[in-house]
Amino acid sequence: MSGGVLYAGPARDWPEWGAALADALRGEGLDLGVTDSAPDPGAVRYVAYAPGGAIEDFTPFTGLRAVLSLWAGVERVLANPTLPRDVPLARMVDEGLRAGMVEWVCAHVLRHHLGTDTHVLGQDGRWRSDPPPPLARMRAVGVLGMGELGAAAAQALAALGFPVTGWSRRPRQVPGVQGLSGPEGLVETLRRARILVCLLPETSATHDLLNAERLALLPRGAVVINPGRGTLIDEAALLSALDHGHLGHATLDVFRTEPLPPDHAFWAHPRVTVTPHVAAATRPETAARAVAANIARAEAGLPLRHLVDRDAGY
Amino acid sequence: MSGGVLYAGPARDWPEWGAALADALRGEGLDLGVTDSAPDPGAVRYVAYAPGGAIEDFTPFTGLRAVLSLWAGVERVLANPTLPRDVPLARMVDEGLRAGMVEWVCAHVLRHHLGTDTHVLGQDGRWRSDPPPPLARMRAVGVLGMGELGAAAAQALAALGFPVTGWSRRPRQVPGVQGLSGPEGLVETLRRARILVCLLPETSATHDLLNAERLALLPRGAVVINPGRGTLIDEAALLSALDHGHLGHATLDVFRTEPLPPDHAFWAHPRVTVTPHVAAATRPETAARAVAANIARAEAGLPLRHLVDRDAGY
Repeated sequence: MSGGVLYAGPARDWPEWGAALADALRGEGLDLGVTDSAPDPGAVRYVAYAPGGAIEDFTPFTGLRAVLSLWAGVERVLANPTLPRDVPLARMVDEGLRAGMVEWVCAHVLRHHLGTDTHVLGQDGRWRSDPPPPLARMRAVGVLGMGELGAAAAQALAALGFPVTGWSRRPRQVPGVQGLSGPEGLVETLRRARILVCLLPETSATHDLLNAERLALLPRGAVVINPGRGTLIDEAALLSALDHGHLGHATLDVFRTEPLPPDHAFWAHPRVTVTPHVAAATRPETAARAVAANIARAEAGLPLRHLVDRDAGY
Repeated sequence: MSGGVLYAGPARDWPEWGAALADALRGEGLDLGVTDSAPDPGAVRYVAYAPGGAIEDFTPFTGLRAVLSLWAGVERVLANPTLPRDVPLARMVDEGLRAGMVEWVCAHVLRHHLGTDTHVLGQDGRWRSDPPPPLARMRAVGVLGMGELGAAAAQALAALGFPVTGWSRRPRQVPGVQGLSGPEGLVETLRRARILVCLLPETSATHDLLNAERLALLPRGAVVINPGRGTLIDEAALLSALDHGHLGHATLDVFRTEPLPPDHAFWAHPRVTVTPHVAAATRPETAARAVAANIARAEAGLPLRHLVDRDAGY
C-alpha cells in the first residue's frame, strides 16, 4: 500500500463511511487504504471531506492529489483558507443522492399540489369532499437551479405532468423543461411558478436571492419548497409574505442554523413545514462508489469529474 | 334537434355537467340537446349516468341507444334490474380521471415511502434527523388491477424508480411493470409488496379479496393504499392486521359507506389515513369530452369504446 485516503468527516459517520469507501476502492481495483486519522500527513493522497470532521488545516498534507467532497454543497470546504488552490476539489455527484432528491421534491410538490396535509392533519371524522384540485398540467412549477439535482428534479416533475420552467444563471437545455436564464428569466420564472423549488448552490450571487422583491413576483398563494441551501431565502421576507397571505406555504429542508433552533418562528408557523435536512441525504453506499471512481481517474492520470470552479464557488 | 342526452346524476352537479356536456357535444359537431329531465322518455337516445340521480327505472326509455357511465365504477348501474341488457353500457375512461388517479397514487406512495407524515405532524421544534429511507429502487410496490387506472399508476411508479409488480386476473403486459396473474400471481405480488395499491374493480370475485389470509402474506410493516373500491378489503381483518403491527399503515380513499361515518374506527386509528373519495375525482371538462366522443361513435354507427362486459361486471 503506497499512500491512502483520509476520511475527514464527522466521527459518528466513520464506521459506515470507512466500510463503504474500503469496499468501493476495492471495487475499483485500487490498492489504497482508508483511515480516519493520519499520523503521517505527507502520505495522504486523497481527503474525503465532510463538514464537522477533525481537519481544519490542510497545510500538513503536502502529498495531496485531490479533495473529494462528501457533500453536494462545497461552500464550507471552500471557506477554509488552508485548502490549496492547486489541489483539485470535486463535488459529490452521487446518483443515490440525486435519486433521493428527486423523490423528496416529487413527494413535496405532489403533497402541496393535492393538498394532502388537509387529510393527514384532519382525521377528525369530517368528510372534506372539496372539489378536486386542477390537474398537474394546470399547475406551473418553477425550479431554480439546473445543476445535477435541479435538472433531475425538473425532469421528474415534467414526467408527472407539471409544466416546468427551469431557471439557471447561464442558459441550459433540459429535455421537457422550459429553460430560462439571466435576470429577466428569473423574473419570468417567478411570475409563473405556483410551486417554486429552490435548488441553487450557495454562492455570493445566490445569497438572499429570494428577497422581498422577488418573493412578491410569485403568484398569490404560491408555495415555496427549499431543499437547496438555507441562505437562498431572506427569512424575514419569507415570513412576512406568508403572514400577509401572499404565499400559501413554505416547506423548508435547509436553514442558516442547523438543527433549526426549537424557538425559531418557522416551527410554529401554520404555513411552514420544517423538514430536518433530509432531502439531500448522502447514502454512503452509492456515494462511496462515486468517490472511488473519481480517485481511480486521478490515479490513472485523468482529470477528475465534477471539479469545483473555485471562482464561481460550485 | 332530433332526440337528446339525458343527464342522470346528482342534481347539485347538473349545472357543471350540463354546460360541459353541451360544450363537448358541440365540439363533436353533434346536434343533440342535453337536459336533466325527460318529459318524453321515448325521445331520449343517451343517458349519461351517475349514482345519486333521479333515474331508477330505465323501462320508459324505449329509444335508448346507449348508457354512458360518468363513473369509472359501474357496479351501481349494473345492479339496476331495469337496465336493458341489449343497450350498450360504457364505462367512464376519462384521461383527466386517469391523470388525477396517477397523481394521487404517486403522492401517497411517495408520502409513505419517505415518511413525510413524521414532519407534517411533527412541527414541534424537534429536529428528527433519522437516517434516510432506502431509495425507491429498494422499495417494492404492488399494484392490484391492471385496468386503465392500475396500469397508468403502475407505470408512473416505475418511472419514479420503484420496482413494481402489477397483478391482474388475466395476464397483461404493461411496459416497465412485472406482470403477474392468477391466484399464484396474487400470492407472489402480496409477498413482495412493501407498499400495496388496490385498483381492482368491484365484482363478486374481488369482494373482500384482501381478507385476513391475504393481508398476512404482505411483508411485516407493509402499507396498504386503497383508491379503488371499499369492498376490496375486509375491514375487520385490516384493522386487526394494523392493531397487531403486521401492517404499518393504511391510506383509504373508498369505503363501504360514504361519507365514512364519524364514529367509524378508521377515523381514530393512528395507522389509518382516511381521504374522502378524492383519488378518482371526475373532472366534468375532460370527462364530458370522453362521453361526447363516444356518443359521436354511436351516432356514426360505430361500436362504443369502453363497453362493459355484463358478465365480468366491468
